[in-house]
Amino acid sequence: MMDGNTKRLTINTTRLQSRIEQLSQIGKIGETGVCRLALSKEDRAGVELVRSWMDEAGLKTRVDHFGNLIGRMQGAYEDAPVLMIGSHIDSQPYGGRFDGVIGVLGGLEVIQTMREQGVIPQQPIELVAFCDEEGCRFQKGLFGSWGMIGKIDPEDLERTDKNGISRRQALLEFGCDPARLEESCYAEGSIGAYLELHIEQGPILDNDEEPVGIVTAISGPLWWTVEMTGFAGHAGSVPMYMRKDALLGAAKVITALNELAKLDASAPTVGTVGHLQVFPDSRNIIPERVRFTVDLRDIDLERRNAREQALREVIELAAMEGGLTYTITEDTNSVPRYCAEWIKQILRDQSKEMGLTPPELMSGPFHDALALSYACDYAMIFVRCKDGISHNPQEYSSYEDIALGTELLYRTAVQIACREYQ
Amino acid sequence: MMDGNTKRLTINTTRLQSRIEQLSQIGKIGETGVCRLALSKEDRAGVELVRSWMDEAGLKTRVDHFGNLIGRMQGAYEDAPVLMIGSHIDSQPYGGRFDGVIGVLGGLEVIQTMREQGVIPQQPIELVAFCDEEGCRFQKGLFGSWGMIGKIDPEDLERTDKNGISRRQALLEFGCDPARLEESCYAEGSIGAYLELHIEQGPILDNDEEPVGIVTAISGPLWWTVEMTGFAGHAGSVPMYMRKDALLGAAKVITALNELAKLDASAPTVGTVGHLQVFPDSRNIIPERVRFTVDLRDIDLERRNAREQALREVIELAAMEGGLTYTITEDTNSVPRYCAEWIKQILRDQSKEMGLTPPELMSGPFHDALALSYACDYAMIFVRCKDGISHNPQEYSSYEDIALGTELLYRTAVQIACREYQ
Repeated sequence: MMDGNTKRLTINTTRLQSRIEQLSQIGKIGETGVCRLALSKEDRAGVELVRSWMDEAGLKTRVDHFGNLIGRMQGAYEDAPVLMIGSHIDSQPYGGRFDGVIGVLGGLEVIQTMREQGVIPQQPIELVAFCDEEGCRFQKGLFGSWGMIGKIDPEDLERTDKNGISRRQALLEFGCDPARLEESCYAEGSIGAYLELHIEQGPILDNDEEPVGIVTAISGPLWWTVEMTGFAGHAGSVPMYMRKDALLGAAKVITALNELAKLDASAPTVGTVGHLQVFPDSRNIIPERVRFTVDLRDIDLERRNAREQALREVIELAAMEGGLTYTITEDTNSVPRYCAEWIKQILRDQSKEMGLTPPELMSGPFHDALALSYACDYAMIFVRCKDGISHNPQEYSSYEDIALGTELLYRTAVQIACREYQ
Repeated sequence: MMDGNTKRLTINTTRLQSRIEQLSQIGKIGETGVCRLALSKEDRAGVELVRSWMDEAGLKTRVDHFGNLIGRMQGAYEDAPVLMIGSHIDSQPYGGRFDGVIGVLGGLEVIQTMREQGVIPQQPIELVAFCDEEGCRFQKGLFGSWGMIGKIDPEDLERTDKNGISRRQALLEFGCDPARLEESCYAEGSIGAYLELHIEQGPILDNDEEPVGIVTAISGPLWWTVEMTGFAGHAGSVPMYMRKDALLGAAKVITALNELAKLDASAPTVGTVGHLQVFPDSRNIIPERVRFTVDLRDIDLERRNAREQALREVIELAAMEGGLTYTITEDTNSVPRYCAEWIKQILRDQSKEMGLTPPELMSGPFHDALALSYACDYAMIFVRCKDGISHNPQEYSSYEDIALGTELLYRTAVQIACREYQ
């Protein structure tokens, strides 16, 4: 918990709050909501506004061919690998004001404060507002961050939004040239480290009454689609012992997944069945077929693999008991990406100096940091998020908490950027 | 099991088979399917054809204002309560050839055989093809049978089909007068007993390798809609101990209902969740709300009530454990309707004489007999139905089995109708 340290912050809380509020006017919906879809007119207006603030802060700015807005602060050694700070300003169609935004404007506040404090970094520092983190327009996110590190599937340019506009077209309209993407890729080793400040989008900090947290890893989700098939029959005329009820099989799997995720109470393992569909879905017909998803996450891949194995056995057993057949389709299998221990140690030390006691927690959701983790060491700071609500106009983080997260980001960036470069 | 008694049957198997095959041509779909929706042109053509056979058999025929086709055979005592035999010839949109049809044409075969055998019944016998048993056109079935005993809700006339045609209009087009329904109601006490032959629509006889069975009761279903509500959240960021997962609650209820229905392995209790819907139904969002149906049936109302009570406790517990709220809406609560012991005894005796050993079983599905059970004593004979499949073109009963069921119906009807009337 903090103890009234807000007064002693180096960063300019008022400026930061004012910028967040101004940006939230672009694409505003209702009192507190935002709709700023990637590569839309609103997104462009957001990029222009943030760029003007970057210019004001003395950064050298550009928009690359992926649609990333990048502002650069010189370092003593211009050839040294960059310290990158970033997040995104695009939003969900029915999104909130803080998701992504606090990482970009917090990062800007960090760099502007450095300049005002006369801090001269050894390495260059770049602030990035990544293009299309959310992925809701073209059904695939982290476009700008995967792009920057050279990991874009060429077919992603042909993905279309619900109006039939392709990402290629949208990039062109945004002022980018999809034929020159390679020019915007960073060479291996050119990014030294990556830092991202983000709202938690979960309820742990709120529950613990802690304003900020240190992320340990972005957990890799294992995503399955499971289909269990039995045999339909009249709900009134097929005796229990003769039934092959697919929904009963699914129910056993749902219950078991929950137990498996809780097996080690001290672990952050989570398991969810979020989607389920019954066929023929009639009140007096025994379910013939049930399709459902499995989402299993953990920062410990070995433990996740053990839970996966146990779940496979549960499904096999439920099918055997119920006379069912089944298929398991693996839709996604991401591995956890760990934050760098050396940056986490700086975060811990700086938190202590600020009088904070940040919990260390896993990130379930993806962030641009996931892509950057394949290019360099990275770390993330989470800011408390009321009731864990995000991707919703009700999303809320207090400016006090955002200021503390930004101050921690500032102090950490200073520690990293002022290390002796050789 | 039968032992080659088919040769010694009194009824005319060839005629019966031929009529079933002829009727199956009306509204035929594919090789073996039938679509003969209530009050449709096909239904009318079916009624005309069956009526012509009734006339041929010497019955006095009429179509009442409910659309029921009735053929009457005189009895020695014309004022005696009628022995009624019946079923229906309307079908599901994607139905089979035997559902309902074998009861009507089997009944016709019974009466025609009586006349040919010179049997003079003490009481009049009426054969009825009831209108709209299936209920799929106007979303409510047993129209003709409920109507005949004076238990129709006036609003049922305003129910419309998917083309916006009301039942009232459909009745008018069928040649009936919906303003004169009362004339078609039977006075209390005017029906002495009711017999119905029907395919089982379940797998018990097929599994037991028995051609026919004696129904003990039409079980009353208890129908609920249950809604459980928790709290949505990101599948990756809400720890297990903080979740309020509505689908997990539902899964516990589904599993428990199955256990409860099987609690007494010798009882015919059945419990089914056939319909289930998840909100928001997204793979990475914890289910906020789940709505599902419960179908619980038993011929023992006391036992069904005990299971219902236990299920209510399961739901309460699952909600408590999961931090959920819930509502239970009772959609239907029918009580079991028992077959008359004295008719079942005749069925047992006649089966024995035929060399049959019919199992006694509960009927889960409704039949016209359910409505008639409120007017008189009743009994039902079930005919084996391959794999229990019904309401499907694959529905199949062999003509040998149908002949045995019809012979049993004949012998039973003779026993009943020839009792001394006073």
